[in-house]
Amino acid sequence: MGSSGPIERWALHEGIEDLRLNIEVELDYHFPAAADVLLCLEAAQLPDQLLLEDLLTVDGAGPLSPIAGEDGIGRRTWLNAEGPFAARYHAIVDVARPAASIDGLAAVPLRELPAEVVPYLWPSRYCQADRFEAFVERRFGALQGGAKVLEMAEWIRAEIDYVAGSSDSSTTAVDSFVSRQGVCRDYAHLLASFARAAGIPARLVSAYAWQLDPPDFHALVEVWLDGDWRLADATCLAPLEGMVRIAVGRDATDIAFMTIFGEARMNAQSVRVTRVRE
Amino acid sequence: MGSSGPIERWALHEGIEDLRLNIEVELDYHFPAAADVLLCLEAAQLPDQLLLEDLLTVDGAGPLSPIAGEDGIGRRTWLNAEGPFAARYHAIVDVARPAASIDGLAAVPLRELPAEVVPYLWPSRYCQADRFEAFVERRFGALQGGAKVLEMAEWIRAEIDYVAGSSDSSTTAVDSFVSRQGVCRDYAHLLASFARAAGIPARLVSAYAWQLDPPDFHALVEVWLDGDWRLADATCLAPLEGMVRIAVGRDATDIAFMTIFGEARMNAQSVRVTRVRE
Amino acid sequence: MGSSGPIERWALHEGIEDLRLNIEVELDYHFPAAADVLLCLEAAQLPDQLLLEDLLTVDGAGPLSPIAGEDGIGRRTWLNAEGPFAARYHAIVDVARPAASIDGLAAVPLRELPAEVVPYLWPSRYCQADRFEAFVERRFGALQGGAKVLEMAEWIRAEIDYVAGSSDSSTTAVDSFVSRQGVCRDYAHLLASFARAAGIPARLVSAYAWQLDPPDFHALVEVWLDGDWRLADATCLAPLEGMVRIAVGRDATDIAFMTIFGEARMNAQSVRVTRVRE
Amino acid sequence: MGSSGPIERWALHEGIEDLRLNIEVELDYHFPAAADVLLCLEAAQLPDQLLLEDLLTVDGAGPLSPIAGEDGIGRRTWLNAEGPFAARYHAIVDVARPAASIDGLAAVPLRELPAEVVPYLWPSRYCQADRFEAFVERRFGALQGGAKVLEMAEWIRAEIDYVAGSSDSSTTAVDSFVSRQGVCRDYAHLLASFARAAGIPARLVSAYAWQLDPPDFHALVEVWLDGDWRLADATCLAPLEGMVRIAVGRDATDIAFMTIFGEARMNAQSVRVTRVRE
Repeated sequence: MGSSGPIERWALHEGIEDLRLNIEVELDYHFPAAADVLLCLEAAQLPDQLLLEDLLTVDGAGPLSPIAGEDGIGRRTWLNAEGPFAARYHAIVDVARPAASIDGLAAVPLRELPAEVVPYLWPSRYCQADRFEAFVERRFGALQGGAKVLEMAEWIRAEIDYVAGSSDSSTTAVDSFVSRQGVCRDYAHLLASFARAAGIPARLVSAYAWQLDPPDFHALVEVWLDGDWRLADATCLAPLEGMVRIAVGRDATDIAFMTIFGEARMNAQSVRVTRVRE
Repeated sequence: MGSSGPIERWALHEGIEDLRLNIEVELDYHFPAAADVLLCLEAAQLPDQLLLEDLLTVDGAGPLSPIAGEDGIGRRTWLNAEGPFAARYHAIVDVARPAASIDGLAAVPLRELPAEVVPYLWPSRYCQADRFEAFVERRFGALQGGAKVLEMAEWIRAEIDYVAGSSDSSTTAVDSFVSRQGVCRDYAHLLASFARAAGIPARLVSAYAWQLDPPDFHALVEVWLDGDWRLADATCLAPLEGMVRIAVGRDATDIAFMTIFGEARMNAQSVRVTRVRE
Repeated sequence: MGSSGPIERWALHEGIEDLRLNIEVELDYHFPAAADVLLCLEAAQLPDQLLLEDLLTVDGAGPLSPIAGEDGIGRRTWLNAEGPFAARYHAIVDVARPAASIDGLAAVPLRELPAEVVPYLWPSRYCQADRFEAFVERRFGALQGGAKVLEMAEWIRAEIDYVAGSSDSSTTAVDSFVSRQGVCRDYAHLLASFARAAGIPARLVSAYAWQLDPPDFHALVEVWLDGDWRLADATCLAPLEGMVRIAVGRDATDIAFMTIFGEARMNAQSVRVTRVRE
Repeated sequence: MGSSGPIERWALHEGIEDLRLNIEVELDYHFPAAADVLLCLEAAQLPDQLLLEDLLTVDGAGPLSPIAGEDGIGRRTWLNAEGPFAARYHAIVDVARPAASIDGLAAVPLRELPAEVVPYLWPSRYCQADRFEAFVERRFGALQGGAKVLEMAEWIRAEIDYVAGSSDSSTTAVDSFVSRQGVCRDYAHLLASFARAAGIPARLVSAYAWQLDPPDFHALVEVWLDGDWRLADATCLAPLEGMVRIAVGRDATDIAFMTIFGEARMNAQSVRVTRVRE
């Protein structure tokens, strides 16, 4: 796949500079009984995404206990909820992410991978990378580094149907590979599985995605190429330059926007990401 | 299960003080083609296990690149092997681990779990904790904290047959739960899965186990109770006081003593752990 | 478990003689596009259940093509449906089934099993009997024949929670064994799996069940003991003497009351089984 | 795929008339304890394969109890073995199978399928046809009947590597679809799964295959097209005109040449199929 392929149409997008995004999230839930909750809604403060404003408000929960996100990226919040529960998150973020393609980036030799990257070589609950090794070698073995990852993303986009409701929290990359259906989480699980099977570290990323339609929490992937983490998104549903990362982890479980240790009913939920014109 | 139950017969062992262990490992492999390898053989330097001597020697491999182990515990070594390969590890370790039972230790409320412990709540490739929640609640729901973990270990020891060769690198906790057979890795996967399903963080631990017969690399579990990691071993094959930890991680993949990215043939392999009488 | 155990409370029920049942089924579906359908609603004419009246009416479908049921038991009907679809089934059946316990019945030696029974030894899509062999030997190995099957049923009833909506058409016996939840179909899959793993042929049975509350299509099991098929039901939700068998097969797929090769929406569906007092 | 494609190179083979085959099978096993065994070695007497000689000899087993094969095709034999066990099967068979391609044969509308064919629409233990529906529709949806089946076989032959030892008795079609490796049994499971997912009945067939190299028991598929069962073989390792069918069934379990209910050790085993030149 050349660098002009459709999977990169966003990455080659011109003229997105000084992208200032306004993020508004509202969660309206009901907890029939007291339950611990781990919220993971806050945009991460990172070199390529600068938080100008950032406010999490929660009604209907005990004291908020913030902890760092996985790999020290972002922030999660422990709380205990009961009865009506309303969380609201607002942020204004300047995203300044160079629209560089990963096409030419080299994979890092395994024996040079740093300690903190190694865990992202391993299979995980929903990314059974070990089971895809022969397929990945056969289908993508001729390519290297970023070009290989782009071709993997292209394959996924071509062979999997994006079908809302086609998967649930138990769906694995193997399941999606067989059923040929999924949503962003499944696309990301497949891409991470393929990359790991090829010896390229890959982690899941939750993000607020500008221009995602319909708006929702988004999941994509970061692969370790040329000594750094690089965004890749097999869904191609929104530009990489407009992604505001929330959290990273081995798979969907690690990056869930809300993990509920108990029962809850969702009444309403919304995510809105809009560009702020100065 | 009371504190006098069989699962704790080792933990209540008296008189093991100043336990000095001599560890000798020899690996003799052949690599038909050059392959990257991640070795994870070295005993970790930790408060309850003090390394007096520690030497890893490798013949038949390119430069050794040591990196930290998962969670900063222990050390792993990247290398590139081709042709005959011989690794030898020697250590002398003073183990000073109080023979305290976990029976009375309290589980930490979820909302007080620190960031670095949270990942060990999640299901992993071989520990599908999410699938055991109803079983764990039904079977162990009446117990709390350390007593619950001990009862889980006891259940596993009673219901699973230790059968050498009954599992392989693809066997999961679900597989072992159904087949009712396994080896130390499977016992550890089950115990970690059960603990996580009950909201108790659990990680896999590789170890050199004094008095393990036949001697081999051992796998067991650490659970997070009362604000610290505590050893637990459903196999009950060796005393916890004689465990020398090598590495920790989410499941067997993370703590493998040797991960080979390519092909290799084992010629011989031995582990020896003996007490040094002063 | 003795023969007075709860699992047999129905089988030991006294005084049900000349049980005449009235069966009324109504299916109201909508087919957005033409689809082939295999209906399997009709009560089977069998020595212990005598059909006095029996009428299947279908509106909104092309010509009905009846074919025999699996093993020559009962009848299925091919049809092609489009748009509004209404099927109605009415029957009056005299059930004369001796309330004999299977407790004392002997398993037939494998090498004496007739050809038509052999397939019910094999694992099937939802009954992975091969994976339960060690568990079944360990847990039920001391018992024989009917007593073994009754103990299996008792174990299932004790260890599995009957939770409406806890399973779907993809749920297997392994899934239910792990999740410890299910509905009648899952109870039957587990019982058939356990019996087959013990070398006792077992098939799934769909039935109209008198006194089942709430009324619905029911699934249970027949095991081959002492040279004949014998009903067994791990749910214990309705008396075996009041079962009117519809179809038999290897697992839930074979006995589905309606198999739709396409899309359909259910508007309403009801099953009613009432005793006719003469 | 046109009718000149490689998958049909055997089917288009010219000049094989009056193919007389000599079949010699020898099984040398040891049973440490008495075990029931179901042998399924005998060539089936069928219109296109006429048995001239046919002799099964067994040493080291109790009385032989022959029963019919599945669907009334061929014959199986129950026996009880202990200690040294030797079975020998010899047959001379005239195979007169027209080298007709299935390319132009029509699938039978579902609602016209006879009762005895319907079970071969359902998923089975190793052929989870239900999970391949979207893939099959997406990949093969444009083709019909025999052309569709040939394209499925071609896809399997192109995408799966034939690797001796890459699968075992627990490997399913889903496993092979993901791992992209297998042997004849796995090729047959995939082809049967794909065909069933497309509404074309398919059953597994065990056979003696002339020109199979190395010689061994073979597994292939029959699909129901134009009102009859038609052979199809995704391995393309031997000509369809030289297949001598032994048994049919839903998947590999049903057609195993020897099912052992207990333990046994294989000492030696050989299959030889040679052409008899008159």
